[in-house]
Amino acid sequence: MEWNHEHFATLLAATAVLLLGARLLGEIAQRLGQAAVLGEITAGILLGPTVLGAISPGLQGALFPSTGPVPVAMEALGMIAITLFLLVAGMEIDLSAVWRQGKAALWLSVVGIAAPFAAGFFPAWQFPELLGASGAAKPLLFALFFATAMSITALPVLAKILFDLKLLRSELGVVLIAAAIVNDLSGWIVFVLVLSLMGSEGPSPDLVTTIAATLVFAALMLTVGRYLLHRSLPFVQAHTSWPGGVLGFAVGLALLCAAFTEWLGVHAVFGSFLFGVALGDSPHLRHATRSTIERFVSFLFAPLFFASIGLYVDFAANFDLLLVVLVLLVATVGKVAGCGLAARWLGFNTRQSVAVGFGMNARGAMEIILGTIALRAGIIDERLFVALVIMALVTSASTGWIIQAVLARRRAVRIVDHVRAETFVAALTEREPLRAIELLTDKAAQAAGVDPALARRRVLDREALVSSALGNGLALPHARIPGLSEAHIAVGLAPEGIDFDAPDGQPVRVVLLMLTPEDDAEVHLGLLADVGRRFSTAEVAEQCARASNFTEFRAFLNAADGER
Amino acid sequence: MEWNHEHFATLLAATAVLLLGARLLGEIAQRLGQAAVLGEITAGILLGPTVLGAISPGLQGALFPSTGPVPVAMEALGMIAITLFLLVAGMEIDLSAVWRQGKAALWLSVVGIAAPFAAGFFPAWQFPELLGASGAAKPLLFALFFATAMSITALPVLAKILFDLKLLRSELGVVLIAAAIVNDLSGWIVFVLVLSLMGSEGPSPDLVTTIAATLVFAALMLTVGRYLLHRSLPFVQAHTSWPGGVLGFAVGLALLCAAFTEWLGVHAVFGSFLFGVALGDSPHLRHATRSTIERFVSFLFAPLFFASIGLYVDFAANFDLLLVVLVLLVATVGKVAGCGLAARWLGFNTRQSVAVGFGMNARGAMEIILGTIALRAGIIDERLFVALVIMALVTSASTGWIIQAVLARRRAVRIVDHVRAETFVAALTEREPLRAIELLTDKAAQAAGVDPALARRRVLDREALVSSALGNGLALPHARIPGLSEAHIAVGLAPEGIDFDAPDGQPVRVVLLMLTPEDDAEVHLGLLADVGRRFSTAEVAEQCARASNFTEFRAFLNAADGER
Repeated sequence: MEWNHEHFATLLAATAVLLLGARLLGEIAQRLGQAAVLGEITAGILLGPTVLGAISPGLQGALFPSTGPVPVAMEALGMIAITLFLLVAGMEIDLSAVWRQGKAALWLSVVGIAAPFAAGFFPAWQFPELLGASGAAKPLLFALFFATAMSITALPVLAKILFDLKLLRSELGVVLIAAAIVNDLSGWIVFVLVLSLMGSEGPSPDLVTTIAATLVFAALMLTVGRYLLHRSLPFVQAHTSWPGGVLGFAVGLALLCAAFTEWLGVHAVFGSFLFGVALGDSPHLRHATRSTIERFVSFLFAPLFFASIGLYVDFAANFDLLLVVLVLLVATVGKVAGCGLAARWLGFNTRQSVAVGFGMNARGAMEIILGTIALRAGIIDERLFVALVIMALVTSASTGWIIQAVLARRRAVRIVDHVRAETFVAALTEREPLRAIELLTDKAAQAAGVDPALARRRVLDREALVSSALGNGLALPHARIPGLSEAHIAVGLAPEGIDFDAPDGQPVRVVLLMLTPEDDAEVHLGLLADVGRRFSTAEVAEQCARASNFTEFRAFLNAADGER
Repeated sequence: MEWNHEHFATLLAATAVLLLGARLLGEIAQRLGQAAVLGEITAGILLGPTVLGAISPGLQGALFPSTGPVPVAMEALGMIAITLFLLVAGMEIDLSAVWRQGKAALWLSVVGIAAPFAAGFFPAWQFPELLGASGAAKPLLFALFFATAMSITALPVLAKILFDLKLLRSELGVVLIAAAIVNDLSGWIVFVLVLSLMGSEGPSPDLVTTIAATLVFAALMLTVGRYLLHRSLPFVQAHTSWPGGVLGFAVGLALLCAAFTEWLGVHAVFGSFLFGVALGDSPHLRHATRSTIERFVSFLFAPLFFASIGLYVDFAANFDLLLVVLVLLVATVGKVAGCGLAARWLGFNTRQSVAVGFGMNARGAMEIILGTIALRAGIIDERLFVALVIMALVTSASTGWIIQAVLARRRAVRIVDHVRAETFVAALTEREPLRAIELLTDKAAQAAGVDPALARRRVLDREALVSSALGNGLALPHARIPGLSEAHIAVGLAPEGIDFDAPDGQPVRVVLLMLTPEDDAEVHLGLLADVGRRFSTAEVAEQCARASNFTEFRAFLNAADGER
């Protein structure tokens, strides 16, 4: 099978379109308060046989051909992408957090696996055809797969939701995360057993050997491997170029572990996942290394993989409403009831217990990866695959809303969401602080539809108490205004600086004028905290002040979010 | 062609071994003062038919099979890797630097292309068989290729050498870089013309159309494309998640441009290279975006590509000494004579002119990429490919040494190269600054083999003038000692801090005691500058002081090099 110009052009174009589409829809999903993976999968469904293939089969076939070297290469790329994605997923797992939480997390995770596992196992064993077993699959094998697929909570989705709701560091949040970690690890080990039970294809057909080798590998990786990595990381970082040495070391060894478990007949993702757990646990792993790997994988490889899912399956033709509803029901009832009751028993109040139940109900990438593997291995049919993907999307998408409603929590407020081009002044001509504040107050009041005179009085009264210059080149005059329904921020830039008599003596280059609803202290404090976090160094205001238009300013402000 | 467990395991293992081998030998090359690419190519030669294949053909064939889906996927991976590498190479090109240098750079680059081009063209036209033309190639086509391959200076190699010799910001350095940029750009455009002349394979057989389309694409990319990118970057950064939005945008569009030029029948690398030039020129491209892309590509994709070169060709069987010598001679004579004379004429002195000539003589990745393309297109035979690779390696490796010798320059000194386990104290028990200094002085003097009493006196005399605490938790007592041949640094850590009466009032946590040769002011100042650069924030000393052994300390110090 030889490559030619046309093949290479197709491969590059397909990769580019898939990546751009996935990133675009991923961004839109995030704007709507959802996980990016929802958008990425949707992009694949749009570009695959389901939508583009239905509209223009010729174009779809030309961009994503099903014969020749291109699909062979796309499959290999998907394999490497998912292997690296599991490396990152593993790195996010903090085993020590589990020990710290002790009893509560352990109980929650045991029940959180056992209940949905049982809820999935018996129906699947009794009615395999109804639940989408492929004709060739043995009932026990199918039941084990189905039960596992019901049991794994999506750790990254859960973490993201808790972060957005400012619950990540709360007692509830920490217990949830620790339970999800144990859940994740044990779910994978069960799934690996299921995979080795299939054992028809691998080079090691002896079932007992495969299972034993896998368990030994997992145990060694989390003990000896973890220790060796912890000892060798400082050596690698001390004696190789930075950060190239440690990047090559980490990615190379992850691929090697993946090759080993794939060769065992289990699956590559298991090897890189365990390696990631062992690596991520070391305090010697530097933040810069972690974030370089995470950025590249989460923003390039993961979107490619999740979008490619939609390329292989026709989601319209294989949509089976009854099956979708059944899978959703089994998954949700087992998980929510089991975890909710366990939480109640552990001493959480009713609202919190409901939140725990629905929190653990978030599924995501893992179910889809399991589904992909099972589909290729011939255990499940395409109808069940589609139902599993939809189940993962629906539970992920609903978790945030439900926790929000039950606990009456709100998403973290960010100033970027409240600045507008209409209330932006690129170059303040006023050199007198109070005049500049008045000008911006008028703009904000106008946009908010409140009385400018009232707003002025409130802002200036507050300013008279103490200057709103916070240092680092930033001033933040503000007031709470009755009758306002949401926060309004007017921005004024002064590249040459205005003397606000700031505590650090620095001239002010960015003035953020903030009007917030009088009856909503939370938004007010949230915005103040966000401003403080973003303008933590003097460079931020300096850079922002150099913006020549609103888009540039917003870009600087957005990037000041840098790490989190 | 179906993937199975064994195929996937082989693909992952092959990628892992190639990556780990390339990174390891790349690090060793850098230790020897060479460019990493030299080690990366060597790793491929060791793992390919030349060495591993000669020792154990069975193992070599099992790891890097030549049939089935694995080689198809490896070829695709190599293609994507080289496309992304050219994106980064393009991003490094600073067009505005060329305008600033004006006449000198332009002349140098014109002569720097014309002379080796002429020196290569005529022999190749007259004696194609002698110089390794494949039997099928037309003489004119071969001569054009050969001449182009003689003409392209390796911009990254040159920049690295100048940086190491602290010449990058000198007048000589800036002119050299500007000339190499023009050289690179024009070399590529000539090569593209050669490629389209081949025009046998692409879907667009009309030669004139291909050339015209390519030139129009290049012109548009560097004008309209550059402008549009410059305008859209702030928008992307303002309205997408950071830094995922801009990463996906940049890589996706680069792949799309690559697909377009590949489809034109030219080569994918040309598209991503031009896109990189257009993107890299925008001041809106943030440092974090640039470095994330650069790190991942230079440390993971580039090593994979350069190592894979050795997998395809037997360097022993195709080694033709006469051809290697001829290629080296033609390449070096044309380049060194042409550029040296041009430099002399432009007013540089003789030594500087020789340095310019040999500086522009560095070849590297580009020649090897051109060679790979020409080999696949059937223009050249494997003997010439091997000779081109060797020529690139030899000229790169020798450039640094020659400039160093001619200009009597030295490599930049780094403290990491002068700290040793024997003179390292993990926990200073002394709480009195002068006692701690004495202790470290004795250690350093002992290691250096000089009189401890003399060293103590010199260090303490200097300390008496003004405290050596520099702030940020660092103290740097030092003295220049007669009879010393190289610098010796003793390190003492004090996690709880010692009160040195530092200018910022902070306790000192890291004491670097430095003895340098009395007659070598340059090393002394170089080390002081390196210390200042590394300890630019208070976190560095704090982290270093937490090290429990020498390896950990060296790792922190090494990583403090972060960006450059």
